[in-house]
Amino acid sequence: MKRLLANTAKICAVVVLVIGSVGVHAQIAKNMAAKSPWGPADEIGTLNMMTDASRFDVLKQVASGKIYDLGVDLFVGMPTCCAAFGDPTYQMWMTHTPARGNAKELQSYSGDGVSMYTHTGTHIDALNHFGLNRKIWNQVSADDAFGVRGWTKSGVDKYPPIVARGVLIDVARSKNVAHLPTSYSITVADLQEALKKQRTTLRPGDVVLTRTGLMTLWPDESKYRLVDQAGLSLEAAQWLVEGQKAMLLGADNFGVESFPSKDAVNFAPVHTYLLAEQGVSLLEALWLEDLAKDQVYEFLFIASPLKMRGATASPIRPLAISIRRN
Amino acid sequence: MKRLLANTAKICAVVVLVIGSVGVHAQIAKNMAAKSPWGPADEIGTLNMMTDASRFDVLKQVASGKIYDLGVDLFVGMPTCCAAFGDPTYQMWMTHTPARGNAKELQSYSGDGVSMYTHTGTHIDALNHFGLNRKIWNQVSADDAFGVRGWTKSGVDKYPPIVARGVLIDVARSKNVAHLPTSYSITVADLQEALKKQRTTLRPGDVVLTRTGLMTLWPDESKYRLVDQAGLSLEAAQWLVEGQKAMLLGADNFGVESFPSKDAVNFAPVHTYLLAEQGVSLLEALWLEDLAKDQVYEFLFIASPLKMRGATASPIRPLAISIRRN
Amino acid sequence: MKRLLANTAKICAVVVLVIGSVGVHAQIAKNMAAKSPWGPADEIGTLNMMTDASRFDVLKQVASGKIYDLGVDLFVGMPTCCAAFGDPTYQMWMTHTPARGNAKELQSYSGDGVSMYTHTGTHIDALNHFGLNRKIWNQVSADDAFGVRGWTKSGVDKYPPIVARGVLIDVARSKNVAHLPTSYSITVADLQEALKKQRTTLRPGDVVLTRTGLMTLWPDESKYRLVDQAGLSLEAAQWLVEGQKAMLLGADNFGVESFPSKDAVNFAPVHTYLLAEQGVSLLEALWLEDLAKDQVYEFLFIASPLKMRGATASPIRPLAISIRRN
Amino acid sequence: MKRLLANTAKICAVVVLVIGSVGVHAQIAKNMAAKSPWGPADEIGTLNMMTDASRFDVLKQVASGKIYDLGVDLFVGMPTCCAAFGDPTYQMWMTHTPARGNAKELQSYSGDGVSMYTHTGTHIDALNHFGLNRKIWNQVSADDAFGVRGWTKSGVDKYPPIVARGVLIDVARSKNVAHLPTSYSITVADLQEALKKQRTTLRPGDVVLTRTGLMTLWPDESKYRLVDQAGLSLEAAQWLVEGQKAMLLGADNFGVESFPSKDAVNFAPVHTYLLAEQGVSLLEALWLEDLAKDQVYEFLFIASPLKMRGATASPIRPLAISIRRN
Repeated sequence: MKRLLANTAKICAVVVLVIGSVGVHAQIAKNMAAKSPWGPADEIGTLNMMTDASRFDVLKQVASGKIYDLGVDLFVGMPTCCAAFGDPTYQMWMTHTPARGNAKELQSYSGDGVSMYTHTGTHIDALNHFGLNRKIWNQVSADDAFGVRGWTKSGVDKYPPIVARGVLIDVARSKNVAHLPTSYSITVADLQEALKKQRTTLRPGDVVLTRTGLMTLWPDESKYRLVDQAGLSLEAAQWLVEGQKAMLLGADNFGVESFPSKDAVNFAPVHTYLLAEQGVSLLEALWLEDLAKDQVYEFLFIASPLKMRGATASPIRPLAISIRRN
Repeated sequence: MKRLLANTAKICAVVVLVIGSVGVHAQIAKNMAAKSPWGPADEIGTLNMMTDASRFDVLKQVASGKIYDLGVDLFVGMPTCCAAFGDPTYQMWMTHTPARGNAKELQSYSGDGVSMYTHTGTHIDALNHFGLNRKIWNQVSADDAFGVRGWTKSGVDKYPPIVARGVLIDVARSKNVAHLPTSYSITVADLQEALKKQRTTLRPGDVVLTRTGLMTLWPDESKYRLVDQAGLSLEAAQWLVEGQKAMLLGADNFGVESFPSKDAVNFAPVHTYLLAEQGVSLLEALWLEDLAKDQVYEFLFIASPLKMRGATASPIRPLAISIRRN
Repeated sequence: MKRLLANTAKICAVVVLVIGSVGVHAQIAKNMAAKSPWGPADEIGTLNMMTDASRFDVLKQVASGKIYDLGVDLFVGMPTCCAAFGDPTYQMWMTHTPARGNAKELQSYSGDGVSMYTHTGTHIDALNHFGLNRKIWNQVSADDAFGVRGWTKSGVDKYPPIVARGVLIDVARSKNVAHLPTSYSITVADLQEALKKQRTTLRPGDVVLTRTGLMTLWPDESKYRLVDQAGLSLEAAQWLVEGQKAMLLGADNFGVESFPSKDAVNFAPVHTYLLAEQGVSLLEALWLEDLAKDQVYEFLFIASPLKMRGATASPIRPLAISIRRN
Repeated sequence: MKRLLANTAKICAVVVLVIGSVGVHAQIAKNMAAKSPWGPADEIGTLNMMTDASRFDVLKQVASGKIYDLGVDLFVGMPTCCAAFGDPTYQMWMTHTPARGNAKELQSYSGDGVSMYTHTGTHIDALNHFGLNRKIWNQVSADDAFGVRGWTKSGVDKYPPIVARGVLIDVARSKNVAHLPTSYSITVADLQEALKKQRTTLRPGDVVLTRTGLMTLWPDESKYRLVDQAGLSLEAAQWLVEGQKAMLLGADNFGVESFPSKDAVNFAPVHTYLLAEQGVSLLEALWLEDLAKDQVYEFLFIASPLKMRGATASPIRPLAISIRRN
């Protein structure tokens, strides 16, 4: 009996380990913020891959003057990733109006205030958005770098303008659906198949934008919602970053990755992997419909985050211009 | 009775005209919003000058991969054009922090909210920012187009991304001063002299950026302040827009024009002239120091305003890349 | 000529009247804001019923030092009447924190900002919250009194502190339910029955608080929500105000009245009746559970709205203290 | 006998002074938050002095129905204690307006949002506003009780409504000045002299309001400003709290105490003394002009802070009603 129990215990332990390893992937050993290969002062991660030469190279390939606008409108009542977590909704209001009879009627001037979660509409996540166990990218600890009003490191104000080669991977088109199904996790094979169909090749330093098709549901907030959106699997993110050396990952959903998380102890494993372990920023809620419609898969990508000191994100309105395939 | 009513209508009309003319001062011919040459639906004014061809033309001239960043940092305590007029100061705050011991310590996630006057830091003024006698550009009346929450016309959300040839006119350098003196009004001759020294030629459709040097005082809010800044005279603005066919005017001060106004009844005559009479938007609080230092006077100018519905402005972070002189 | 002008004026007046009546639908006698019996300058309506004598009278009847707190907590994520209409959710955030190692660690000082719809938590609606056809209480027109930043009349800043006899009508208890059913409209008979069971008599000038029991669902925002809450019928409100001469009406739901409205053209008929036609303010989202539990039906009622200039409401935390029945 | 009393008074004064000075020097050595005599769970400090009996006692003494309003208006552009420290200014804006022709024109409804530093206008400071070396009242450490969104202890939401005997000490009147001079520190003798002239006696549990007269400068923000306002000296605060057992201290200036601080290492020594060492909350920017004009020195004091969870302060509009002297 005793022996039976002992054996049972051993078996249970093995089961737990197996379940654990299934649920936690290879990550379990890591789960800690990484040191930057760009040195102890680095706060921007893979954006260091950009150089004057890399930018000039793609600028020279521009093939058109047609601009693709990858940003969505910001408006009161717009879908929000995070109001359910207590974050503020988008608000805009007048501070001056051209009221009849006021002293400044001649000039009739109008002004307005705006208030929002920094992760509103199309935006970029900065490296201080997620950490692991109170350390962010480059092993910067909250004890050292979280001050009176927030992070003093890796805020979006440190980000250079982004001018790089961009690639669209249209997974929805590859699968011939309007949009991927609820909570679908895009696999490495999905990406490879779409790239093959598009005849697109990834290059180190690319801004890689994955299309789920979910923007076809925008701006219906009952349908376009973080909680169960399709997106990248962890493995797909790993393949893009470690395999293909992508500089930035973006998508037309709220969180790049699929939700809910398949990791029992980490509600956003792709976020922690990209931001804290790889130094890769995320582009979220991108408008990719026009690029997709015109089948523009390779382009000059330009985004210019507002330099809000310390912020974990900035709303952006990125641009794309088709480039010559070469 | 019928005749009486007809007479009454005529009399009423006369009364209205008389009252009206009293209210409209001497400059009756000018102090009114203009009709757009781009038709009754136009809401963006001179931005209509941009075409795929115009953009491709300047993109092809790019001579470098070096990016000039024309935007300033946004931070709590930064100088503000308009807090004295009751507008909100820039605020940023944390909504999630990586506090020790909370349920999400593994992910250690941070988020933040932001609130500001839309005319904060480097920004673009939209055509609905100033009108004349309750009408804005294209003779859109507040009675028709100012709704429950603001203007429904000519908001910054209607603006396309701006990709155009940019020109810097460095007046401060031309005059060999760190910055122009208090309230100095830049003349047409000042602009012409600086252009001559730079050997720069303006072209129709240009984004023309005038450097006063005032950013050398940034961010000291006791010195960098709207109330008495140097800037364009009305005549200089007229020469650039009507004479040289500039598409957009920008500067490194808070209001492009000089303050206080020299017009006893109009506290911002260049604003009303540009926005309401000419359909020309303004770029304000630009960081021109790096361009000036490198003497880059002709460049690809890129700015991508956030599409905040109805807003009278958007914070932006424009980019410049030098182009070949030809 | 003089006579012609005089006639013209008369004709114009007639024309205006005719046009006016066409615009006011069938219910011309009712659907318009009323003139105040307290004179053309009145901005507070029935709050004029309070006098030093009325206040002293109820103060002298105080029977205890036990305070009933009729206000709810304000917190991030709390139920909101109106986020679905675009209004801001309640937000609070730190502006100073006792971070380790900062220059002010000795004092370790903390500060916070707060942002909310003025109709948040327990609050009072001011008379400018609803009008009828662009006129509010006392026939004040938006054309005259809606300025650059809002109403210049009947804002909550004009409100005196409220010190009066209060009465609780516990309809939920009278009907022996935890709370009234979805969208139930309280009838005059319901009020009379509850008053009879309580042996409570209403008096002119009372603050009358109706208990639906809905606060037993607070703060579950999926259950405590404006859209289908029980509340007063129009007839019940009319009986309380015109029949019983109540000074103020309040309830433990979000809108005092039941929703959705039974009036096809008016989504809030009790609001327009009380605010625009009767000059009666509303107290909403009151915490009446403690009064109900202790069966305290008559009390000194004290509320002190924040004097936010022009505002249509103020959050309040009213108090009740039991008084001697006499 | 008379002479003996006089001598005794002198000796007592000396003793008080000596004790006072001992207290001051002792304080410097302490500089640590105190344990509460009301037990380890206490979060409200001296507000524990209130009981049903204490409240009923003062309620029974009410001598009038005249209400004194001790709160100031809140308005865009109002003086602010703390915008210079980065805190938000008071903002209010419309979220719904009765615009012509919109679908809800019948109801013509208006709504507004509001945003402010919690220490705006007349307000109460909660015990978590200042600590000492990262511990607040009752030795609660930031390491334990400062969470994802702020303090979980001693927020203003824990505060009961305040109903107590109030006393006005009119120092400005006692000194026959419109207001005390710049940075003047009120001494113990100043308080004693004013009390004597008023023939007012302090009692344990009192809300003690000191009048500097500075509200005669309100709302001129160039004159009514925290930075150099007159107020209590540390010794005066100590005498009121430790000597007279005051429950709450208030004043008509921005910070109760005088500024700038005379303590080289503590910029707000009265704040840290009251909040962290004594558990005494502060009432700031009180409107005492009406009480002063009518020479009402003893009154029922009522204030009802909004229960904003975790907040370091709440705007309030306190009331005073004169009581019988006995």
